[in-house]
Amino acid sequence: MIAEKYKQMLGQKSVIRELSEYATERAKQIGAENIFDYSLGNPSVPVPQEFTDQLVKLASSDNPMAVHGYSPSLGITSVREKVAASLSRRFGLNYKKEHIFMTSGAAGALAHALRSVVAAGDEVLTFAPFFPEYTPYVHGLDAELKVVPPNTETFQINFDAFEEMLSPKVSAVLINTPNNPSGAVYSTETIKKLASILTQKQEEFGHDIYLISDEPYREIVFNHVDAPYVATYYANTLTCYSFSKSLSLPGERIGYVAVNPNCPDAELIVNMCGQISRGIGHNCPPSIIQLAVAEVIDQTSDLSVYEKNKDILYDGLTKLGFSCVKPGGTFYIFPKALEEDAVAFSKRALKYDLILVPADSFGCPGYFRMAYCIPTEKVERSLAAFEKLAEDYKQ
Amino acid sequence: MIAEKYKQMLGQKSVIRELSEYATERAKQIGAENIFDYSLGNPSVPVPQEFTDQLVKLASSDNPMAVHGYSPSLGITSVREKVAASLSRRFGLNYKKEHIFMTSGAAGALAHALRSVVAAGDEVLTFAPFFPEYTPYVHGLDAELKVVPPNTETFQINFDAFEEMLSPKVSAVLINTPNNPSGAVYSTETIKKLASILTQKQEEFGHDIYLISDEPYREIVFNHVDAPYVATYYANTLTCYSFSKSLSLPGERIGYVAVNPNCPDAELIVNMCGQISRGIGHNCPPSIIQLAVAEVIDQTSDLSVYEKNKDILYDGLTKLGFSCVKPGGTFYIFPKALEEDAVAFSKRALKYDLILVPADSFGCPGYFRMAYCIPTEKVERSLAAFEKLAEDYKQ
Repeated sequence: MIAEKYKQMLGQKSVIRELSEYATERAKQIGAENIFDYSLGNPSVPVPQEFTDQLVKLASSDNPMAVHGYSPSLGITSVREKVAASLSRRFGLNYKKEHIFMTSGAAGALAHALRSVVAAGDEVLTFAPFFPEYTPYVHGLDAELKVVPPNTETFQINFDAFEEMLSPKVSAVLINTPNNPSGAVYSTETIKKLASILTQKQEEFGHDIYLISDEPYREIVFNHVDAPYVATYYANTLTCYSFSKSLSLPGERIGYVAVNPNCPDAELIVNMCGQISRGIGHNCPPSIIQLAVAEVIDQTSDLSVYEKNKDILYDGLTKLGFSCVKPGGTFYIFPKALEEDAVAFSKRALKYDLILVPADSFGCPGYFRMAYCIPTEKVERSLAAFEKLAEDYKQ
Repeated sequence: MIAEKYKQMLGQKSVIRELSEYATERAKQIGAENIFDYSLGNPSVPVPQEFTDQLVKLASSDNPMAVHGYSPSLGITSVREKVAASLSRRFGLNYKKEHIFMTSGAAGALAHALRSVVAAGDEVLTFAPFFPEYTPYVHGLDAELKVVPPNTETFQINFDAFEEMLSPKVSAVLINTPNNPSGAVYSTETIKKLASILTQKQEEFGHDIYLISDEPYREIVFNHVDAPYVATYYANTLTCYSFSKSLSLPGERIGYVAVNPNCPDAELIVNMCGQISRGIGHNCPPSIIQLAVAEVIDQTSDLSVYEKNKDILYDGLTKLGFSCVKPGGTFYIFPKALEEDAVAFSKRALKYDLILVPADSFGCPGYFRMAYCIPTEKVERSLAAFEKLAEDYKQ
């Protein structure tokens, strides 16, 4: 009695994974230096030395039973306190440990946040383009994910479409800023307008609507870009964070849910996350990684390379005639394909050893995503390949 | 719209946690050395030095992006290969990496194993006494957990009751040997008989019945005890393992599901586990811990203290008149309380600063569990307290 629902998921192959596997194979033929692999969002800069030093110190502790011991189900108390203090210091809200639930990365954070405020049969709204893994998170709780069509001029929110889709069945709205895949950062104006609509609709519908804010790219915002802290503007905000990108630790599975201290049910939601964990076998992120991250809580890797790469690509691609919204953060750029069918476009790009992800699975057909967390010299060299690709479309 | 199902779980307080919190408070008053805290199953011996050395080496790598990078969704390939090779070497079955799915501890392993072969509405059978967290794992998938009453003579399987309860609605049978809380180890005779019944019923019902074998205590088996490898006797076995107890790493969340290579759907089940992860936000155990564990795959901590503690307690308690099945492994012992109501008994034990867990939540009222992963000198000193407690019942 194999569970049919997961068996069926096996058929849905990941385009990103397929392209990445192709790139690995092709690299063996022509050399890795000749492949311009823009498929995967794996950080390309090292973790800060201070993190490594702390990790080595913890591993070498003369009380290994304490370092490697069970974490309480909501996370190690001192770690939750340090996360809360850091958020309060940086963003002005009065976070305490009672508002923090430690998770296995942003995936764990989203899985818990959604389960805590969404019941079977509810609707969750998100905005195209969106991270395709939102779909299994929401389907896993028998709720429905509805995707608001994009505003392709700016990749800010398409408010007309949003208001039309915001029905009483919606219990949560899921945003991701800075955005994977568009690179857009929601402006203060956008967040304020979103908060105002949600506040009004909560009253109209007579129930809470939670804002789940997926923020793994929070620390990768480019110079002078307006990047408000979402929770500041809306009490019912559950902030989902991961240290994957800010500290270049994607494999160590460490993040948190921070519930806005002004949310009336904040402490209840955090305690519920502990109960949700029991059923899904989550049971805390690794103890030693919790402890090490807490020691470098306000640090990041040197993230400046991403802005440098963005500048080179944005200038180069627009010069070649690509239409593209300028990214405000992340390490993604999201240009329009040179033909309507982005899958066909991405296939043609392979001729020039450019690995580009068509955005159909992100809910935005006709566009493609590039993850430019690769060495700068390679980004520079890739422009010649893009030039050939653009030429190809002129013939 | 707070999710009611998790909100309601908040009311169900954990007896173990409450007792452990009481012990911590009481220790502040009378000194930790005067509290005999047998409540928590936290390993009391250090991780092997070789693990620490490997962890430090990995943390200090000159390619931190590789060490801390994303793990493939089924686990790091080289780690899966090493786990498979170790199992094959030790137990003779022909495991390959295709049969291994790396998980965040036994909790992650059980959550995935159950989801892969149990659908909503199915029944799962387990045997009293049983680990109470099985309940949320099974309820989380809207299936029903049915508990076969214990054979209190030996804490082997009560086969009469089992056969009566094994209906066509049962898609999985969940066992835990060596057992938490009884300390019993299922004998070869028990496993063979279980396998034979399951094989016969599979045929009779015309569908698979999976055996999910929860084995975090596999390496803690005492001298001369018959401790067969479960999967040897039944093809449809999903072995759920954790390194928490064998390497004293409970907080680092590292384990695996190993599907018997003779299970016709073995590779399908492993691949499905990868899909299950997507919905529950699990996404692999920490990369650096996967890599470090793989380097010490056949090692354990020095586990001999547990057998020493067992001998002292078993001899001491039986001499005092406690009725008790001799543990074959784990670091638990499971005596009968001195009155019918084990909760009242456990309360009376507090007078002598003995922290004992009544077994009602393990499905075995009238018994209590002791986790003797504490220093041996403390175990010795605790016997005087037990003597006073036994005296108390004679008055």
